Amino acid sequence: MVSDILNPPRGMRDLTGPEAWLHEYLVNTFKKTAVSTGFEPVVTPTVEYFKLFEAKSGEEVRNSMYVFQDKAGRLLALRPEVTASVVRAYLKELRSEPKPLKLYYVAQCFRYEEPQHARYREFWQAGLEVIGDPDVNADLSAAFTASVFLDEIGVGHEYVVGSVAVHRGLMKGLGIPEDAQDHVLHLIDKGLVDKALEEASKHSSRGDPGLLKELLNTPLDRLEGFINDARELLGGDYERVLKEHARLLEFTDALRSLGYRVEYSPSLVRGLAYYTGLIFEYKTKALGVSIGGGGRYDGLTMVYGGVFEHSTGLALGLDRIALALQGVKTPGTGGGVAVILSSKVPVSEGYRVAGALVKAGFKTTVYRSPGFSKPLGHAARKGYARAVIIGERELKEGLATVKNLETGAQSIIKLQELLENPVKHLA
Amino acid sequence: MVSDILNPPRGMRDLTGPEAWLHEYLVNTFKKTAVSTGFEPVVTPTVEYFKLFEAKSGEEVRNSMYVFQDKAGRLLALRPEVTASVVRAYLKELRSEPKPLKLYYVAQCFRYEEPQHARYREFWQAGLEVIGDPDVNADLSAAFTASVFLDEIGVGHEYVVGSVAVHRGLMKGLGIPEDAQDHVLHLIDKGLVDKALEEASKHSSRGDPGLLKELLNTPLDRLEGFINDARELLGGDYERVLKEHARLLEFTDALRSLGYRVEYSPSLVRGLAYYTGLIFEYKTKALGVSIGGGGRYDGLTMVYGGVFEHSTGLALGLDRIALALQGVKTPGTGGGVAVILSSKVPVSEGYRVAGALVKAGFKTTVYRSPGFSKPLGHAARKGYARAVIIGERELKEGLATVKNLETGAQSIIKLQELLENPVKHLA
Repeated sequence: MVSDILNPPRGMRDLTGPEAWLHEYLVNTFKKTAVSTGFEPVVTPTVEYFKLFEAKSGEEVRNSMYVFQDKAGRLLALRPEVTASVVRAYLKELRSEPKPLKLYYVAQCFRYEEPQHARYREFWQAGLEVIGDPDVNADLSAAFTASVFLDEIGVGHEYVVGSVAVHRGLMKGLGIPEDAQDHVLHLIDKGLVDKALEEASKHSSRGDPGLLKELLNTPLDRLEGFINDARELLGGDYERVLKEHARLLEFTDALRSLGYRVEYSPSLVRGLAYYTGLIFEYKTKALGVSIGGGGRYDGLTMVYGGVFEHSTGLALGLDRIALALQGVKTPGTGGGVAVILSSKVPVSEGYRVAGALVKAGFKTTVYRSPGFSKPLGHAARKGYARAVIIGERELKEGLATVKNLETGAQSIIKLQELLENPVKHLA
Repeated sequence: MVSDILNPPRGMRDLTGPEAWLHEYLVNTFKKTAVSTGFEPVVTPTVEYFKLFEAKSGEEVRNSMYVFQDKAGRLLALRPEVTASVVRAYLKELRSEPKPLKLYYVAQCFRYEEPQHARYREFWQAGLEVIGDPDVNADLSAAFTASVFLDEIGVGHEYVVGSVAVHRGLMKGLGIPEDAQDHVLHLIDKGLVDKALEEASKHSSRGDPGLLKELLNTPLDRLEGFINDARELLGGDYERVLKEHARLLEFTDALRSLGYRVEYSPSLVRGLAYYTGLIFEYKTKALGVSIGGGGRYDGLTMVYGGVFEHSTGLALGLDRIALALQGVKTPGTGGGVAVILSSKVPVSEGYRVAGALVKAGFKTTVYRSPGFSKPLGHAARKGYARAVIIGERELKEGLATVKNLETGAQSIIKLQELLENPVKHLA
């Protein structure tokens, strides 16, 4: 079928017109914000060896990856997320850098899932990672940057926070092996709490698995009491779980004091298996789905053979943020000067003028056409504010017509004068 | 092996530190330049159906694609280039837009080739496409933008120009079928001229195949004479070939009048099968390889079932441009204010200060640490110009120490005053 070839792959999209402008605006604003809060860029490959994601990306991610062999038989995957790549790049290139390292990226990711509203098979993630800082300051430096970005683009948002440290500590105390823990958390993440509790009971070799159910119903102000009650079961992890609880409180308090609404959810676990403590997600009124999230992934470096490092990060979904902004007018790129030549004027003349205009800081484009009305209409539609018109006769006399595309007013001036001081004649 | 997992896939790279900053600088500058010369963004999927590239990407590209099946058995490919995707997106989304359409993109592309200097399996292309304008003005609007970009980043460059219209017209006249024409051009592109001429002779069913050899030795000032001599052989294509020759001359003259060096090469054919007329490449003294190129691809729309459209475009290789800029200092992101808290100060205090600083336009980062010397050293190394230091005692008294990280000078001021007028105290 002829028309079939016009479609992008199922679940993927072309961004054109206002959607593309919005995408560029989000990418540029995110990067600018990240740089302004001390983050540095990192760019990793779109494709990675499958084994990079095999270990710790979590069941859901692992089951929905695009996996394929290259011609030499290497097993590759389109990245489902970027944190694993950043940790790999850190271990390979950056481990001798002074800590903390604050890194940002904007990158496409891929998941093979049934396409539905706000879920695409190719989607854009804007992310922040902080490596080498145990303090809650690291978590906040990422969250603060994300909130500054969301505020700047006008996306009202609130935080849902939790901590998998308690869940994991508890399950470890219950004798549940790590693989089974990952699966229980996966089921909780999918909203299948009963099935999760069943699974936990099945794998639990000591203690009372009912405690996990209790945890999922414990509000934040009773969480410390819960942890103290479970002190014996938590054993050697008790101190660490208590520390993660303090991080959760300090994170929550700091965000609230900055004016953000923060809600604790004991069943928030997130879909990635590498989280070890604080986790959080971003909600917005405009959409029923999360627009991003993150958390602590201390020690992920060890999974790839490195020494233990503290680490934390987050990622925002730019496609969903774009949906939340639908209909909002983004800063335009209006203004500028259209240079319009008649067909008989050498095209080099147009670019001589354009060169001077670009140097003077004007946005500019060159038209050459038999008549002036079509290019004038096109230029007005594209938002150009002025036109410099040069016909055959003007060229001979060294003149140009300057037309104000907003008012229609026009005047004739010497081209040389225009070139010498474009701002004076066109601003 | 543990360390094996730390490598990106063979032939692909992580960009970190100065390499990542340079990449961001090139991407941002290209986009800014393209917007300032009237181009609009388009974002297409990283993955396309294989059949999109099957038809007209050329032998070399086709043989070096990453091709794989998704779980539903669809044959997909990592894009080897972006023009096919832009034409597809144009036909699907933009065909009713007023012409000409001027589109830009920055995108990773993939080729499975033996990795070597300046050739990566994942590489970044910055591209421009103009759809719907037969005039040489369209070709120039792309080339002008590329040159403004290269000038801005300080990459001296010259043009190598040619036109496949003559080659194709001649081969058609010689009775060589289109597939064989593609292969002959591919061989010329690879520098295998003798083999190309042999192949042409083999497939030629009429006329003198020696004419192709003559064309490959004809300089620009004798090209029009050559075309006129071959008028009979060119038959119905004669007029079009002559028009394309005029385009080549006008393009060359305009670029020269803008101050660029332009060289004609009769054996320039480029590796993509969809070119129909003018083609060109960018050379730079710093590198032995081309840093980009482009040309006319009139009618590629028809390959995908659309009506005939005039079109032209180019792509620059950002990885190679980065190599050409190696050692050149790119505009830094120095300056800014580091907020440094002692461990006993609530972290929220740091973000209250950071919030005010970001609002005032400062780049800022927050440290919290038991001592001040480590964060001060880190901040100085990262280029921060000022530090705002808040210890436990300062906090109680509502004070902060402002330290100039360049001179070492420091003073104590009221924190409230600093928050009310950060520019006054920190600029």
